[in-house]
Amino acid sequence: MVTADFLLVHAGELLTLAGPAAPRKGRLSDELGMILDGSLASMEGRIVWVGPSDQVPDNVQLTPHATEFDVQSKVITPGLVDCHTHPVFSGTRQAEFAMRARGEDYEEIARKGGGILNSVERTRQASTEDLFNTALRHAGTMLAHGTTTLEAKSGYGLDLDTELRSLEVLRDLPGFTGQTVVPTYLGAHEVPAEYRDEPDAYVELIVERVMPLVAEKGLARFVDVFCERGVFSVAQSRRILQRAEELGLGLKIHADEFSDTGASALAVELGATSADHLLASGDQSVSLLAESDTVATLLPGTALFLAKPFPDGRRFMDRGAAVAIATDFNPGSCFCESMPFIINLAVCECGLNVEQALVSATINGAFAVGLGDAKGSLEVGKDCDLLVWNADDYRSIAYHLAVDDIDRVYISAKQAVSRERKVKSVSLEDDR
Amino acid sequence: MVTADFLLVHAGELLTLAGPAAPRKGRLSDELGMILDGSLASMEGRIVWVGPSDQVPDNVQLTPHATEFDVQSKVITPGLVDCHTHPVFSGTRQAEFAMRARGEDYEEIARKGGGILNSVERTRQASTEDLFNTALRHAGTMLAHGTTTLEAKSGYGLDLDTELRSLEVLRDLPGFTGQTVVPTYLGAHEVPAEYRDEPDAYVELIVERVMPLVAEKGLARFVDVFCERGVFSVAQSRRILQRAEELGLGLKIHADEFSDTGASALAVELGATSADHLLASGDQSVSLLAESDTVATLLPGTALFLAKPFPDGRRFMDRGAAVAIATDFNPGSCFCESMPFIINLAVCECGLNVEQALVSATINGAFAVGLGDAKGSLEVGKDCDLLVWNADDYRSIAYHLAVDDIDRVYISAKQAVSRERKVKSVSLEDDR
Repeated sequence: MVTADFLLVHAGELLTLAGPAAPRKGRLSDELGMILDGSLASMEGRIVWVGPSDQVPDNVQLTPHATEFDVQSKVITPGLVDCHTHPVFSGTRQAEFAMRARGEDYEEIARKGGGILNSVERTRQASTEDLFNTALRHAGTMLAHGTTTLEAKSGYGLDLDTELRSLEVLRDLPGFTGQTVVPTYLGAHEVPAEYRDEPDAYVELIVERVMPLVAEKGLARFVDVFCERGVFSVAQSRRILQRAEELGLGLKIHADEFSDTGASALAVELGATSADHLLASGDQSVSLLAESDTVATLLPGTALFLAKPFPDGRRFMDRGAAVAIATDFNPGSCFCESMPFIINLAVCECGLNVEQALVSATINGAFAVGLGDAKGSLEVGKDCDLLVWNADDYRSIAYHLAVDDIDRVYISAKQAVSRERKVKSVSLEDDR
Repeated sequence: MVTADFLLVHAGELLTLAGPAAPRKGRLSDELGMILDGSLASMEGRIVWVGPSDQVPDNVQLTPHATEFDVQSKVITPGLVDCHTHPVFSGTRQAEFAMRARGEDYEEIARKGGGILNSVERTRQASTEDLFNTALRHAGTMLAHGTTTLEAKSGYGLDLDTELRSLEVLRDLPGFTGQTVVPTYLGAHEVPAEYRDEPDAYVELIVERVMPLVAEKGLARFVDVFCERGVFSVAQSRRILQRAEELGLGLKIHADEFSDTGASALAVELGATSADHLLASGDQSVSLLAESDTVATLLPGTALFLAKPFPDGRRFMDRGAAVAIATDFNPGSCFCESMPFIINLAVCECGLNVEQALVSATINGAFAVGLGDAKGSLEVGKDCDLLVWNADDYRSIAYHLAVDDIDRVYISAKQAVSRERKVKSVSLEDDR
């Protein structure tokens, strides 16, 4: 018998996502741990019991002021984990998007003031308050679409001051949205204009100056590098990530987005928690990742946004990789906050079946941000972050395209969004 | 000076979509007729004046109880026109969707009870009330995503009784959602099981019995045929559509979805209002359509849902076709009600620029349903159906992927959806 202050009963399909997982790597099977007519109890935000509704009386004792909630046969899933986002920036890039749609090439767009360095310039000029409000609006939209945990990167400041301010924005977000935000320092997102002629000096700045300060202030859990031809080489990426490891920070790599330069091999060599993008991974890279503890994170929204071929998830899974999926939300290459839409894409275009897509958007997302023990599944001891879907069949989540049926979002057993509050959460800045 | 009972002022960008159009064919340019700091006045639901806000005092006189609304620099567009949907059916097909994601082939799925004939069986068994509630829920979701006018087809009953009931559902929808619903009889969606061995007898049933009754009762404005290898031949389609023309009904064709059997040529020969799908159109079909008055309607959501190559809109536009885009909302091949998402896809994947996508989703959609004179643009004499977007740049509409920024929806100058009411409109059936 357990004591609970929150009890949810009669979930038509309670998807616990419980099941065996490789210790650091994540889930390799597509088991959903589904309980028909399921119930779940939590105490002070932690799950204390999960099982069939008819076993509740023998197992759960409620505190006097407990909340009990009959979900009337709806589907329950863990809160979604968006393990790759870039929500701290100033200025959206719809003008550049429209130019690209007219067939203008990237260099021409950069000449007209587009591209990532345009975002960097505007982000540096923005006040921290403005950066916070923008990040808050987008995190609120993510929440309305079911994201209860997100990894979020800096990387549109590049200089010391703006990178620290960006990470401070991320530190403060959970106090407003309730979400768990895993902060990642991505100073190595691009070489800033002032270092264009001496990129190694920028790497030294990151390694010697910024990262130690970020670590000392406890502002990041991960360090990420955009390892790509023309951006950061494998050698530069190795230097940055090795230093991150010395400082006790976790490792992530933007790998094989446009070309396979050996970034996946580096991820495996250094034991990175995740390698992300993987659109151009060669066979050897796929094999290395599959045999490692590094989660392969696919970002199909970016492929759609840039009209590139979709990442082939089956290729990774068939060889034994743990696959996660994420939005890559950012102003340049994927302006999308919706994880349910990424589930749609993973199934329709990336070769994942419905069950694999749900694993990739929950428990494997949690492993991809180092939270496999706390998030991503509904098991005793884990945080009570969950979604109630206005559906009686979990397959509807992947089937309903670009329209999600999320009814309520709970974080730590507290209701964070209902359909009513959903509306408010996307209008934080303009209260009409 | 005009008299108005509704005045909207200070639209940052008022996209009127006014501009030259080929008489029956639609808009060939990508002009948006944009007015900066624009205003719009209507009287009894009809637009009476459109122009810059500073010209309002000299041009518009308000009635005593008129509504005046300052949109505070937001973007205004015409209501979206979804010119191809199938919202009358019973039973969703997420199980079949999930089987397909596991790699099972269509025949196997059909054996297990999937496919369109499964929908037909369930639709025949459903009560008219159930069919209505399902259609209402989906039309409400469309409305929340900005669709103020939709074309909607029967075609999941096939037999006389269920087809008539389906069209009656469509007749009754506007009374509940306020939308304009253009009903299309699609008895020739598939050959029903009971006519499998004598498809020509089914064509005779349509031609001799059902269509005359549909016309007599005034239940449809268009007749549509699924002209495709293994479904209805060009000869059968011609027979049905010629009869439709005799009965005074407009013509539409599902053309070149899987193969080019000459359906586009037939559309042009008969002067059909639209030819829809066009994924497999050969060069000659493209040329014929481009030179005709038939609108080329592209359905990119279906391509995504079925993981087929996206339709190439540029190919049609470059030769002079009027292009419309639509959701193809249906339970088998595109379970998506969102026109803003179709705009995303048209730009990201179909070669339309942002402006062309907006033309295709508004004024050309109106031409595709024979309402080019009443819907799809904000011009004097037209219905005051419009959207207020929570954006200050119209390009954001295409840029924000799978998340729309619709703030309010007006139909005939009456507010049909706000963010608050949007919530209600998707929970028509379960009022929590």
